[in-house]
Amino acid sequence: MSTSPEGSTADRIAASAAHSGGVANSSSDDVAEAVRACARRAKEAAVQLATLTRRQKDAALHAIADALVAQTERIVAANAADVSRAERSGATAAYLDRLRLDANRVAAIAADVRKVAALPDPVGEIVRGGVLANGLELRQVRVPLGVVGIIYEGRPNVTVDAASLCVKSGNAVLLRGSSSAEASNAALVEVLRDAVAASGLPADAVQLVPGAGHDAAKHLMRARGLVDVLIPRGGAGLIRSVVEESTVPVIETGVGNCHVYVDADADLDQALAILLNAKTSRPSVCNAAETLLVHAAVAETFLPRALAALRDAGVTVHGDARVAAFDPTVVPATEEDWDREYLSLDIAAAVVDSLDDAIAHIRRHGTGHSEAIVTRSQTAARRFAAEVDAAAVLINASTRFVDGGEFGFGAEIGISTQKLHARGPMALPELTSTKWIVVGDGHVR
Amino acid sequence: MSTSPEGSTADRIAASAAHSGGVANSSSDDVAEAVRACARRAKEAAVQLATLTRRQKDAALHAIADALVAQTERIVAANAADVSRAERSGATAAYLDRLRLDANRVAAIAADVRKVAALPDPVGEIVRGGVLANGLELRQVRVPLGVVGIIYEGRPNVTVDAASLCVKSGNAVLLRGSSSAEASNAALVEVLRDAVAASGLPADAVQLVPGAGHDAAKHLMRARGLVDVLIPRGGAGLIRSVVEESTVPVIETGVGNCHVYVDADADLDQALAILLNAKTSRPSVCNAAETLLVHAAVAETFLPRALAALRDAGVTVHGDARVAAFDPTVVPATEEDWDREYLSLDIAAAVVDSLDDAIAHIRRHGTGHSEAIVTRSQTAARRFAAEVDAAAVLINASTRFVDGGEFGFGAEIGISTQKLHARGPMALPELTSTKWIVVGDGHVR
Repeated sequence: MSTSPEGSTADRIAASAAHSGGVANSSSDDVAEAVRACARRAKEAAVQLATLTRRQKDAALHAIADALVAQTERIVAANAADVSRAERSGATAAYLDRLRLDANRVAAIAADVRKVAALPDPVGEIVRGGVLANGLELRQVRVPLGVVGIIYEGRPNVTVDAASLCVKSGNAVLLRGSSSAEASNAALVEVLRDAVAASGLPADAVQLVPGAGHDAAKHLMRARGLVDVLIPRGGAGLIRSVVEESTVPVIETGVGNCHVYVDADADLDQALAILLNAKTSRPSVCNAAETLLVHAAVAETFLPRALAALRDAGVTVHGDARVAAFDPTVVPATEEDWDREYLSLDIAAAVVDSLDDAIAHIRRHGTGHSEAIVTRSQTAARRFAAEVDAAAVLINASTRFVDGGEFGFGAEIGISTQKLHARGPMALPELTSTKWIVVGDGHVR
Repeated sequence: MSTSPEGSTADRIAASAAHSGGVANSSSDDVAEAVRACARRAKEAAVQLATLTRRQKDAALHAIADALVAQTERIVAANAADVSRAERSGATAAYLDRLRLDANRVAAIAADVRKVAALPDPVGEIVRGGVLANGLELRQVRVPLGVVGIIYEGRPNVTVDAASLCVKSGNAVLLRGSSSAEASNAALVEVLRDAVAASGLPADAVQLVPGAGHDAAKHLMRARGLVDVLIPRGGAGLIRSVVEESTVPVIETGVGNCHVYVDADADLDQALAILLNAKTSRPSVCNAAETLLVHAAVAETFLPRALAALRDAGVTVHGDARVAAFDPTVVPATEEDWDREYLSLDIAAAVVDSLDDAIAHIRRHGTGHSEAIVTRSQTAARRFAAEVDAAAVLINASTRFVDGGEFGFGAEIGISTQKLHARGPMALPELTSTKWIVVGDGHVR
């Protein structure tokens, strides 16, 4: 299946691991070499990918979508093995639901690949350009990053999403999924590689990183010079460990302790609708609200309604004393509650005496993801937008809108909560770098 | 001089170190705490800096320029101490020249600060924006990065350049200069802080990192969460150590093994002019050429002229056998020569059999800085531009043009040779991040 020539023993170990999903009994050194061999093949593939036309890349994406549909049975069978293993190990119903693939879900994943094909090619876009006083022509154009590593947990659809976004942006991708989805990911990547190769692209554009456990991920994090960027997708623990251990540049994603601040001048009906939407429409995602802040001036009118509505929606409120005074079912908040990303039907809640206090609270406890204010005051909105330091600031809108799909990007590879390179929802342009092209006619300085 | 209130002992140690330029006898733990205290004050200052208007920032920059001129005598006296210390330790004439400040140089530095004041404010610029189908207004605006750390060697003018670019872009700056310029930097930073504070900005917008030796730099590299980005400026060794040791995100700068490739279809007069300019106009800088590649088809006509001209210009050529065949004074190149950044009147030279071989050579040995082709062939130019992976690709122009000033940026804080965040010359926009501002009217998902 691989288009690469017969290589070293390490290459063959890596290639076989990429197909079987793991090298169960190899030592750490073997894993290190297998990961590096894998990354070297990705780097070779990236050279070819960088100069493909949009037409070639879109053809490969349609071939991937066709193959996913054609190979549904095989994919679902592999997934069934993961699911029954997870069942035996006592996974929760929610976890099993996220892991499970059926024919409809495979079809939906394939449809998403076609959506990526329909998006404009970011590569070659001229970001800035012009002619200098001396006649030199200058243009800054988007180019692929090269080799993108994704370390992720849980859902096997990420395997296909990440691969299709990387193919479209001309990057080779190294995928390191969770061991619980090992069989599903192996089957999906085999289908992807076959389709990519059949379209004339290098199969090594898409690879599973070989090796079991944390070891392989660790070697991926140390492959500086071979891997251009690592994007961890998953829980706070995973992201922290990648950020701390990696010598490869990392784009930090996802942890969202998002606040909804109800200002003294809020439209309280809007505030209630936004609060409920932000907290309850999908509590398990990073753009869900985790803390409610209410200005003291509207606490008496707003909090009784809000607390009743949250209770009716099954939400446990962890409130400070001023919130608890309105409702005996409020759980007293501890200091930790202000920093928690619950990802569940729980919310921390506090009364603040001013916009300044709300901003200070968010500065202290926010994770730089998405922060909302509900207010009719132009001044308050302007100050909140300017002074809150986050990837996204929302005025009279739910935090749930901070999403590549909602922003009209057509896709998303994660939400960056760091300040370098990309901030907020990341899609195709965020998977590119730039290059300056300078054209002269014998120009010297 | 500091506007911060009386703080902890560590704060006072740090503040005094910031003024004296070093804590000679403190232990590593004390240095660590002093560096962190310094970074915390920078982070506080950054909150205020982020919301300044352009008018306030420009006023501070003009105050800095005025103060530099007014305090010339004091600055030159402090510098004289550094210079005589360097003389006693046997520094080269070139090194002493870079270190030395006189009244004219201080005036030139002040003039550069006024140039930065005249540049547009990058903060607040709308990068993308529009209205979504549901009526949500979306805009992506430039915001400061926050706290920028600069670790640099040699020239004291970098102290002022970096500070003025950071003030203009609303960032607080932590400066870690070389110990050889300790007295100069301490005097300059004292002048900067006074001027900044007199303009109503927090003095801690500009700080020298306290502590002696590598220790302080190391603690700066570990101040993740307090420092948003580190930019090392200096030799390859400094840059490598920062890249490897830092947990703070780093922008890698500067190492340039730049190639000039003379194609089969080159205008040989242009090729000669570009080669000489790229190699000899300023050999000590990162955009100077370090390797010449000549297509075999023009080797016989081009190389005798080129080798004679290089010899006349005092350049030692380290050539492969095919180059050496034309001139007995050519030094045989070793494998290391292809990877060397000489920064001197030396150049490696090789004959290649094709454009492919030239591109392959650059892929193997280039540092991703600036690569030039000289050719009249549209096809060769197009392929070189597409396939060479570097911050800048030049067609019929000298590599020496890759520079923030030449590109019309008005200033430069370094040349990034990495792919994330910024690539090529970095100026004001590269010192910013972005923030999404989403405005609705009670929008829920």
